[in-house]
Amino acid sequence: MTKKNGPDAALQNPLAPFNLYFSLNNGLSDAAPSLKRHLSKMKGMYADDAAFGRLLADGGDPLVYEFHELGIPESDGNLAFGTSILYPGKVGSEYYMTKGHFHTILDTAEVYYCIGGKGLMLMENPEGDWDVQPFEPGRAVYVPGRYAHRSINTGHEPLITFYVFRADAGHDYGTIETKGYRKIVVEQDGLPIVLDNPKWQ
Amino acid sequence: MTKKNGPDAALQNPLAPFNLYFSLNNGLSDAAPSLKRHLSKMKGMYADDAAFGRLLADGGDPLVYEFHELGIPESDGNLAFGTSILYPGKVGSEYYMTKGHFHTILDTAEVYYCIGGKGLMLMENPEGDWDVQPFEPGRAVYVPGRYAHRSINTGHEPLITFYVFRADAGHDYGTIETKGYRKIVVEQDGLPIVLDNPKWQ
Repeated sequence: MTKKNGPDAALQNPLAPFNLYFSLNNGLSDAAPSLKRHLSKMKGMYADDAAFGRLLADGGDPLVYEFHELGIPESDGNLAFGTSILYPGKVGSEYYMTKGHFHTILDTAEVYYCIGGKGLMLMENPEGDWDVQPFEPGRAVYVPGRYAHRSINTGHEPLITFYVFRADAGHDYGTIETKGYRKIVVEQDGLPIVLDNPKWQ
Repeated sequence: MTKKNGPDAALQNPLAPFNLYFSLNNGLSDAAPSLKRHLSKMKGMYADDAAFGRLLADGGDPLVYEFHELGIPESDGNLAFGTSILYPGKVGSEYYMTKGHFHTILDTAEVYYCIGGKGLMLMENPEGDWDVQPFEPGRAVYVPGRYAHRSINTGHEPLITFYVFRADAGHDYGTIETKGYRKIVVEQDGLPIVLDNPKWQ
């Protein structure tokens, strides 16, 4: 009676109804592959370049996070969604994080619902406002339009979030890769603290 | 270090970042009140009017479902979100369900992520296409633009979903209240089956 069209249905336009499974335990889908970001893809984004280099040399390019890109057609009536799984770890004293991005259509929001782990969403807008919001299981974080956003894992388990944004929002990674964020989150005496990013331009 | 602005932050425009907790166990928020739909508010929507009347007379107007309406400003860059908690039960052989709705801006999608319970999303569009998709913990259902959508609890526990839609999409309940859905979902020999709705106009 029920159909399991899987993510390929999302490539039709107009879209047909479909469903897709993402485990509440580990965030992974049984049908949609994830995109994987290993540490080597984040060169220069962590504050401590020496620690970054040692980790790459000794650690075999660890998987920092993975997420889903379903290929939903990019119209303003469609929604893109998926899960992000950010693993625990640090580069020096700085917690593992995602690259983070602005939306290309800057004034579009994104909603994250945390289903596992512990962490923070670090946000900043072009006007210089910044903010952090907490992730824990059951906590939703609202990223308003204009805010670049980056997830940070401050715990000891994978930080797993389910996210939704307008399908035509687009991702601008370049601005963050060039300028960096104004702030970084590091561990000090066992707790996360927010510091100015020494590399911010 | 972290802020817990709660849903009131959502009433600012432009929005500030905020977070809001919805229990992964029961779907309820510790900060945002839910809207409650008792059976008496669904007169005429179930196929078996006699069973409906008996249930109201004997059952003290049971709570069928509750959901969240956060008051996010209705712009096309904002997203509305929350949880829906649909309790188990039947009216005659027809499973408890939500009223369901079209979006006023018809061609806007909605994403549901199931965090508890078991059920179906019943959908139909003005062209006469209809569809059902399954809910179980971890399963996301994509409701494309143009599709009216109604959740149905076919299990024995609350059906809990986290939903996101464009904040300006709007809700058209009237069309469904007047015409009904083309299909109903009833229990037969212990299993859900889809039948033509005898009341559909």
